Amino acid sequence: MLLSMNVDGKHYRTIWLGSDGSSVEVIDQTKLPHEFVILKLTTLEDAIRAIKTMVVRGAPLIGATAAYGFCLGMCEDASDEGIERTYSALLATRPTAVNLQWALQKMRDELSGIESSQRVEKAYALASAIADEDVAINESIGKHGLGLLKDLNERRRQPECLNILTHCNAGWLATVDWGTALSPIYAAHNEGIPVHVWVDETRPRNQGASLTAWELGQHGVAHTVIADNVGGHLMQHDMVDCVITGTDRTTCAGDVCNKIGTYLKALAARDNDVPFYVGLPGPTIDWTIQDGVRDIPIEQRDAMEVSHITGRAADGSIQSVQLIPEGSPVRNDAFDVTPRRLVTGLITERGVCEASPEGLATLYPELGNAPAPTL
Amino acid sequence: MLLSMNVDGKHYRTIWLGSDGSSVEVIDQTKLPHEFVILKLTTLEDAIRAIKTMVVRGAPLIGATAAYGFCLGMCEDASDEGIERTYSALLATRPTAVNLQWALQKMRDELSGIESSQRVEKAYALASAIADEDVAINESIGKHGLGLLKDLNERRRQPECLNILTHCNAGWLATVDWGTALSPIYAAHNEGIPVHVWVDETRPRNQGASLTAWELGQHGVAHTVIADNVGGHLMQHDMVDCVITGTDRTTCAGDVCNKIGTYLKALAARDNDVPFYVGLPGPTIDWTIQDGVRDIPIEQRDAMEVSHITGRAADGSIQSVQLIPEGSPVRNDAFDVTPRRLVTGLITERGVCEASPEGLATLYPELGNAPAPTL
Repeated sequence: MLLSMNVDGKHYRTIWLGSDGSSVEVIDQTKLPHEFVILKLTTLEDAIRAIKTMVVRGAPLIGATAAYGFCLGMCEDASDEGIERTYSALLATRPTAVNLQWALQKMRDELSGIESSQRVEKAYALASAIADEDVAINESIGKHGLGLLKDLNERRRQPECLNILTHCNAGWLATVDWGTALSPIYAAHNEGIPVHVWVDETRPRNQGASLTAWELGQHGVAHTVIADNVGGHLMQHDMVDCVITGTDRTTCAGDVCNKIGTYLKALAARDNDVPFYVGLPGPTIDWTIQDGVRDIPIEQRDAMEVSHITGRAADGSIQSVQLIPEGSPVRNDAFDVTPRRLVTGLITERGVCEASPEGLATLYPELGNAPAPTL
Repeated sequence: MLLSMNVDGKHYRTIWLGSDGSSVEVIDQTKLPHEFVILKLTTLEDAIRAIKTMVVRGAPLIGATAAYGFCLGMCEDASDEGIERTYSALLATRPTAVNLQWALQKMRDELSGIESSQRVEKAYALASAIADEDVAINESIGKHGLGLLKDLNERRRQPECLNILTHCNAGWLATVDWGTALSPIYAAHNEGIPVHVWVDETRPRNQGASLTAWELGQHGVAHTVIADNVGGHLMQHDMVDCVITGTDRTTCAGDVCNKIGTYLKALAARDNDVPFYVGLPGPTIDWTIQDGVRDIPIEQRDAMEVSHITGRAADGSIQSVQLIPEGSPVRNDAFDVTPRRLVTGLITERGVCEASPEGLATLYPELGNAPAPTL
């Protein structure tokens, strides 16, 4: 397998087993882009904290971290109660990410069926398989998306390069490797297509400005950071050939729940005939929900994420500064839902499909034949 | 006249003549919301710097500052050459604001026709009249907009309050007094309508989070600061009754050039049947331009506005911090154009009209009868 992403010329995944064979190591993404710090997780509590405080983030990486967190939980208590306690504690970390539920369910189901003495070893094998499966899925998303980008490149709007806009971070930092939305972009770059990425900074947590810009830069992909307000204007002026975002949860009808602000970019794309694609691994499809705007609960996060921001001060130290007047209230919705009518296509590990129940059922017939949802 | 806006219980305008009768005093808006600082301008160069560095901002206030800056220029050199030099120097400060051109043209025209010995006195009289006219215009925008808000309040979507979303700062800080977009909101608040304002933070310069939140808070208007990405999501969930923004330049066809990101909110408003209004004084209408997307030049501002942000550190000091990786490029378009098809109505000092050549010609018949633009 081609080793994909580099940091300072050395290949990394975002999560891996420590050399002691039990601890888990992750890149501390709260320190990026200013510092590259590796964090060792040795307890279930460490894993919970890593997910909650967004040391790791991105639906697929959260899933993998939950799986490895389950291993750490098993090391502490491999009893039936231990399984339940580990499951509940990890499930409570982030309510929106469906991968989290999927990974935890899988761990619980498989571990419940075996002797407690075998659970630790089995847990590590399962977590490793979940991580490897994520990498394979993402590589496949890249290959399928590459076809779309080749087509768009044939008729790109500006002579210099193929301009792709992305929101938030759905790159390799959001997964175990390759990324979802960025995987086709890396694939295109590796093929020699002159891609250039407009990187939405993605307030309030600035995952675009800090993480997407950083990982594109490390891999040598041309990119430009823009405020979240700019994308529509660029589309009006033929400076965007397509939008590709990730998704935290996709409904079985094709609605896309992704980082807050995605919906606004989808509206602008539609208004300017710019294709709007979403890169997603199968596990992020929630087959139990159809109407995303109505039925997906949206996580409300801490007001401090909006009222304050962290960056590198002139002296090199990392500082948090307050942006709003003392006493002004804040609301911080973490995600929004882009209705399927605004989505040109879903790029999955099994191919590209229409954002519709029929489209998804074509690619996932074993799942898409679930009982028809009542409206 | 009702004294409108207060700071700590004391009435202020944003610009006024100093007690020495020649210097000009302004609120240093780059220090808000953390410090309330008054800056004295004593030279033409001071006025130019105040406009360029956004000590003063907002189209109407830029116009008034340019007028007072002209006075300072006349104090230095009231010759014909002085008029031309002052005019050119002030005109070069900000390319997009049409009020700037309008105020400078008026000053140049009126001063050119009189003896140089009378120019200083006349300049101050003209600047004072321009400032007073702005206040009267804005108060009138408030009265006309109030009618719309009363209607919307009768059928508001949430029982608690009338929810209005605004982008950037088009409040009294952007004008001499009252504001444009916020003037109807202040009028409604003063009438006892339970208004609540969703304040877009408005990256990259955060005029919403810093200025709009501050001035609404000082006047006691309920408000909540949100990231620019959030408005569409709120509209999907019936939490916005209308959007009101200002405009830096309105074409004679009704296209609206305003702070970058306005277009995205207009798209979301249209997608959710939320009325999208624009508050504007007559002088911001550019009767020479019809197609805003095609023909309005968009100011590109410093990359540092995106790559860095300023706020108050824990120790109370004002610090600038870097948000993006070293070496990532940035693009910083300051404005975008919202096509008239997305604008429900224009709220002017003469009444509310459709965003169309016909609508504007009804309110401004003396100007709207300019030769039909060729398409």
